[in-house]
Amino acid sequence: MTTFAPLFVPAGLLERVSDIAWLEAMLAAELALARASGVDVDEAAFDASHYDVATLCEEGRAAGNLVEPLVRALRARAGEGVHRGATSQDVLDTAAMIVARGAIEVVLSDLDAAAAACARLAEAHRSAPMAARTLLQQAVPTTFGYTAARWLAGLLDARTRLHALRYPAQLGGAAGTLAAFGDRGLDIRSRFAEELGLDDALVPWHADRSPVAALASALGAAARAADKIALDVVLLAQTEVGEVAEGTGGGSSTMPHKRNPARAVLARACARLAHASVSVLTGGEHELERAAGAWHAEWPALTAALAYAGGAVASVRECLNGLHVDTERMRANMSDDLYAEQRALGLDGDYLGSAEAFVDRVLDRYRL
Amino acid sequence: MTTFAPLFVPAGLLERVSDIAWLEAMLAAELALARASGVDVDEAAFDASHYDVATLCEEGRAAGNLVEPLVRALRARAGEGVHRGATSQDVLDTAAMIVARGAIEVVLSDLDAAAAACARLAEAHRSAPMAARTLLQQAVPTTFGYTAARWLAGLLDARTRLHALRYPAQLGGAAGTLAAFGDRGLDIRSRFAEELGLDDALVPWHADRSPVAALASALGAAARAADKIALDVVLLAQTEVGEVAEGTGGGSSTMPHKRNPARAVLARACARLAHASVSVLTGGEHELERAAGAWHAEWPALTAALAYAGGAVASVRECLNGLHVDTERMRANMSDDLYAEQRALGLDGDYLGSAEAFVDRVLDRYRL
Amino acid sequence: MTTFAPLFVPAGLLERVSDIAWLEAMLAAELALARASGVDVDEAAFDASHYDVATLCEEGRAAGNLVEPLVRALRARAGEGVHRGATSQDVLDTAAMIVARGAIEVVLSDLDAAAAACARLAEAHRSAPMAARTLLQQAVPTTFGYTAARWLAGLLDARTRLHALRYPAQLGGAAGTLAAFGDRGLDIRSRFAEELGLDDALVPWHADRSPVAALASALGAAARAADKIALDVVLLAQTEVGEVAEGTGGGSSTMPHKRNPARAVLARACARLAHASVSVLTGGEHELERAAGAWHAEWPALTAALAYAGGAVASVRECLNGLHVDTERMRANMSDDLYAEQRALGLDGDYLGSAEAFVDRVLDRYRL
Amino acid sequence: MTTFAPLFVPAGLLERVSDIAWLEAMLAAELALARASGVDVDEAAFDASHYDVATLCEEGRAAGNLVEPLVRALRARAGEGVHRGATSQDVLDTAAMIVARGAIEVVLSDLDAAAAACARLAEAHRSAPMAARTLLQQAVPTTFGYTAARWLAGLLDARTRLHALRYPAQLGGAAGTLAAFGDRGLDIRSRFAEELGLDDALVPWHADRSPVAALASALGAAARAADKIALDVVLLAQTEVGEVAEGTGGGSSTMPHKRNPARAVLARACARLAHASVSVLTGGEHELERAAGAWHAEWPALTAALAYAGGAVASVRECLNGLHVDTERMRANMSDDLYAEQRALGLDGDYLGSAEAFVDRVLDRYRL
Repeated sequence: MTTFAPLFVPAGLLERVSDIAWLEAMLAAELALARASGVDVDEAAFDASHYDVATLCEEGRAAGNLVEPLVRALRARAGEGVHRGATSQDVLDTAAMIVARGAIEVVLSDLDAAAAACARLAEAHRSAPMAARTLLQQAVPTTFGYTAARWLAGLLDARTRLHALRYPAQLGGAAGTLAAFGDRGLDIRSRFAEELGLDDALVPWHADRSPVAALASALGAAARAADKIALDVVLLAQTEVGEVAEGTGGGSSTMPHKRNPARAVLARACARLAHASVSVLTGGEHELERAAGAWHAEWPALTAALAYAGGAVASVRECLNGLHVDTERMRANMSDDLYAEQRALGLDGDYLGSAEAFVDRVLDRYRL
Repeated sequence: MTTFAPLFVPAGLLERVSDIAWLEAMLAAELALARASGVDVDEAAFDASHYDVATLCEEGRAAGNLVEPLVRALRARAGEGVHRGATSQDVLDTAAMIVARGAIEVVLSDLDAAAAACARLAEAHRSAPMAARTLLQQAVPTTFGYTAARWLAGLLDARTRLHALRYPAQLGGAAGTLAAFGDRGLDIRSRFAEELGLDDALVPWHADRSPVAALASALGAAARAADKIALDVVLLAQTEVGEVAEGTGGGSSTMPHKRNPARAVLARACARLAHASVSVLTGGEHELERAAGAWHAEWPALTAALAYAGGAVASVRECLNGLHVDTERMRANMSDDLYAEQRALGLDGDYLGSAEAFVDRVLDRYRL
Repeated sequence: MTTFAPLFVPAGLLERVSDIAWLEAMLAAELALARASGVDVDEAAFDASHYDVATLCEEGRAAGNLVEPLVRALRARAGEGVHRGATSQDVLDTAAMIVARGAIEVVLSDLDAAAAACARLAEAHRSAPMAARTLLQQAVPTTFGYTAARWLAGLLDARTRLHALRYPAQLGGAAGTLAAFGDRGLDIRSRFAEELGLDDALVPWHADRSPVAALASALGAAARAADKIALDVVLLAQTEVGEVAEGTGGGSSTMPHKRNPARAVLARACARLAHASVSVLTGGEHELERAAGAWHAEWPALTAALAYAGGAVASVRECLNGLHVDTERMRANMSDDLYAEQRALGLDGDYLGSAEAFVDRVLDRYRL
Repeated sequence: MTTFAPLFVPAGLLERVSDIAWLEAMLAAELALARASGVDVDEAAFDASHYDVATLCEEGRAAGNLVEPLVRALRARAGEGVHRGATSQDVLDTAAMIVARGAIEVVLSDLDAAAAACARLAEAHRSAPMAARTLLQQAVPTTFGYTAARWLAGLLDARTRLHALRYPAQLGGAAGTLAAFGDRGLDIRSRFAEELGLDDALVPWHADRSPVAALASALGAAARAADKIALDVVLLAQTEVGEVAEGTGGGSSTMPHKRNPARAVLARACARLAHASVSVLTGGEHELERAAGAWHAEWPALTAALAYAGGAVASVRECLNGLHVDTERMRANMSDDLYAEQRALGLDGDYLGSAEAFVDRVLDRYRL
């Protein structure tokens, strides 16, 4: 039901967070559980094509989630051993981590491309003077390369945070004790995680949502880094500033002269939407062993956080890759007042302080 | 891309906020404009079946919205007069109001049914004693009828707010001056609103989002009223309390004894999601004549606010309609301490103060 | 503990939401209760100078609020009849409404002054041409008067919402049944409200927070209307645009040429802070008869929402009252492209469509 | 203006985030700058007692912050060299990090004490059976020790995040180029950080708020971990459950039998308030070289995030330290249905699966 999803989010990312992707991840979790616990099942039954998410959703309203109807359908095909010892949340939390890992792979790829574009801009315009603006007033001279380098620094920080994420499997059984597995609980739990290439968490995290909140914060960081670039592009692309322009800037049927910074605008919209979903994921109250509502809200919120954070990054990547940089306009825009500080200090008007050294610092970090 | 939408939101409401519904509303706006301005167009071209939202979204990335490609496609079929004098935001804002009006019709219908269920409970259990709980500690006696009456009062407040909403058309042209309509601007604007059965706003509201924020606040009120009921049901349905139970409470494959309050749980999840979208719609900064991002974020946020507020109300309606009320358990749960205040005041233990009078007040208001 | 409060919020408003103001309002509620219920008390004891908020806060940690220690102290001075029949939340909710009413009086006064300033600008510059900017790109001609008129329309909408607020008294006793008042409950409740000049609500609203959410939404509307103006001023005051400037724009020790739009900047900061507090007030879950946490969070959140919404409005008032408007720069900034639509339509370049008619509409509404 | 601050936040933490603490931190930053750049100043002038925050705030409205009036006052006392080469944001951002570091020291100390209390509970009740509750329905047996161990795991995660925080100094000059320092910029910047014991960031972060967002996310984690414990205590302390009680639970004047879980309730309120401030700190848009509003909103928001996250942790510490645990009631509450899974699997009714192994895991991690 998300309005105009492909306008905001690349098709490849939408696939990674689609209901089908969630279904496949749930099936992967169920299969891994069967394998880890040595239950004999018909593996052909774990193919998503056998199941319909809409039907599962409708059947799932009585239970409050769709694992219950999915397990019924799976058992009919694959055998009664399916899901033995697990609870719905084991499957859905594990699926959430699989979906998140898959989506963040795409986000990181776009983020790397955006970082490469920033690095190119920082190098190419390392010494290109422009006005620095504070509170949107011209302040002192800076360079466009330094601006791009600071964009890059923001992206690198977000990348570090995304790379540092852990994706723990969830397996605790009805209430986190693994009781139905007898004395094989911890062993099956490790093998389950291993089957899926996920982390083996210290304890079940059914009602301790640190892993989800960590995902959310990192996605928020990615959205923020993209948003910063988008905002600056929108400001520098203003008619009265005109220092950058999107390469394939959006025309308008009635105003063909307009070159709207459409990607930057979409990135800002995505960032707003991402932050709203992040707040759902970081502020929930989860009662006792498993929550009565805050958990259920996570599924759409996580999907939206992944999609819109990724959408913000992807739009910024496109924006940067086609960015026209008008260094002459930059120089022409520099007001006389801009040199007041320099003059007061008896410095050369073109003096740029440590701007270039900072560019080098960021590029060195990038190249690590 | 919203995960498991039919689990949370009734099918009928999902239809009203679907991309198809948005497309139809945009086409209705374009057609109304052509009629209002007397432009000759082929009305058969305004059928949604001719257009594909996914394609429009992809083509729309360059412009930042899908009105631009839609207008191109429409002009090819219906004639060059399509969209004359309007801007993309005129069409999308007007469509947003059409979509909202259609969705809120469904929300109100569910809300009315939920209110009727509360009224029945309030009447049936007007004098059924139960423990009032403050900070989740038993405090003094109350009645279940009074509890249901207070739920009803919350729903009535939300209903009043939803009924009071205005749905203004948007028509301002490129920047709110209606310049392309010559001296016919105000007249065409009125007729445009009339064609669609929408309000004729004082001035274009491209960058004054009061109408959207008002929608959002009213949807927040609906979500809050539903959430209050859902929370109370979850608490009263606890194993240790057991005073109510959902009629078709969700079983569990491993724990068949469990009667999870699944609808109440889903309602709480929906309310959380609705509030997050409400915050997107109420806090945006819209630059000068039309915004560079905050506006674009509204489309998915409005859809989500409508869907999840409605989902919360619908789940509560289902929850209430099948609610088992165990008045014996209510009486049995009443601890001796509960009567401390009464004893201290020398009152009869069964004395319920104005509880029943308040029930009558709410029922009188309901029956107005 | 709020950082730099007088930087953001006028002193007069800070007083209205101070701890002393809350204390006075609680005392007023207790006194009104004594009068309404005919309890004999020493009215001199209800003077705030007898009590210390910090002490009450520390003593109140055991009970979770400071009404309990306040009542103990009051009873020692005024007699045992104090607070009879009431619960802590009766006193605090009633006090919240008294505080809110007092603060909103100040907010409305600043809002009226800001509206008057907008009206003056709209009249004075009714026909002064300037570039309309959409997505921050020059689009078509508009007038500064129309810009100011749309600011005014936003303020008028917020004013209407603030004026429409109701301030209900709260009196329900331990759990909303008024049981301790015997058969005089409803009567005492009415008189209590009347004593304080507050509304007599349909039922106690201990756990139905509609009145608080309504306050929050209206404060959000005020913050939004102020924020819109502040954002536009910041954008129009950019060095490269230079069409407006704050009269006493903030200088900088190192860059004396800078005229920072300091009030507009502070207004934007206030609006951000107000929205965050609004979200606390609109999204809380209140359990059964009285909430275990969501209610307690309201006191600081309501204070902050009042203070920052008012701070935003007050800063915008100052900003507008000293605003320099450079109509020559406005005209000079108008790019040739701006007239593309006009030329395409064969219109006179100076044609402004319905801009002036819209100005008149808004001014007419203002003068009502 | 924050209402009833000492009710929510310990006095020691309030001091660390007070306006005086901010002032002292700003003065420390100015002094460190003078020392790092070898400027001759009268160090006695850097004592906070010479300055008044309220006055600085009022004088600061023209500039939009209070560094400008502070520098004027400082120069009059200490010499003209004060603040040379720096911008207001250098001082305020550096001060923010000093304040945050000081406050988080207090938060960590409370968090350590809360963790110790959890560890004691986990050990003492390692094998004490109780009902696990999912969706607030009794599900299967667990132990109270395991419950406390999972609380501990959440606190340890938050502690790890708080310990991992970096506190970078800010020094960039007017727009991040350090131009006014000539070729000594990078060197002075390092020495400045060293003087204050802060990190030497890669580049100035005037408009890249990663360090602030990281602080906010970690504070959110602390609030979440505390909130989880508080919520569970409130639920387990319900009259009908009665498995835990706060040692000095809040009485009520009219209902002396009540033992309100007042600290847990205050902790939940604090967590709500903390999350709202976190969202201000993580979602801001910072324009170009320095922001026109989003930055200014950070000061009160950071203070509130520190205070309320710390308030949540401190309240939970108090709650845990006096917690009464009623293991008999725990056993008595266990319904027969609770053993359905065990019976179906042919397990001993007292079988607790891996609950105790998980307790050991968490305690091992704690003791590291």
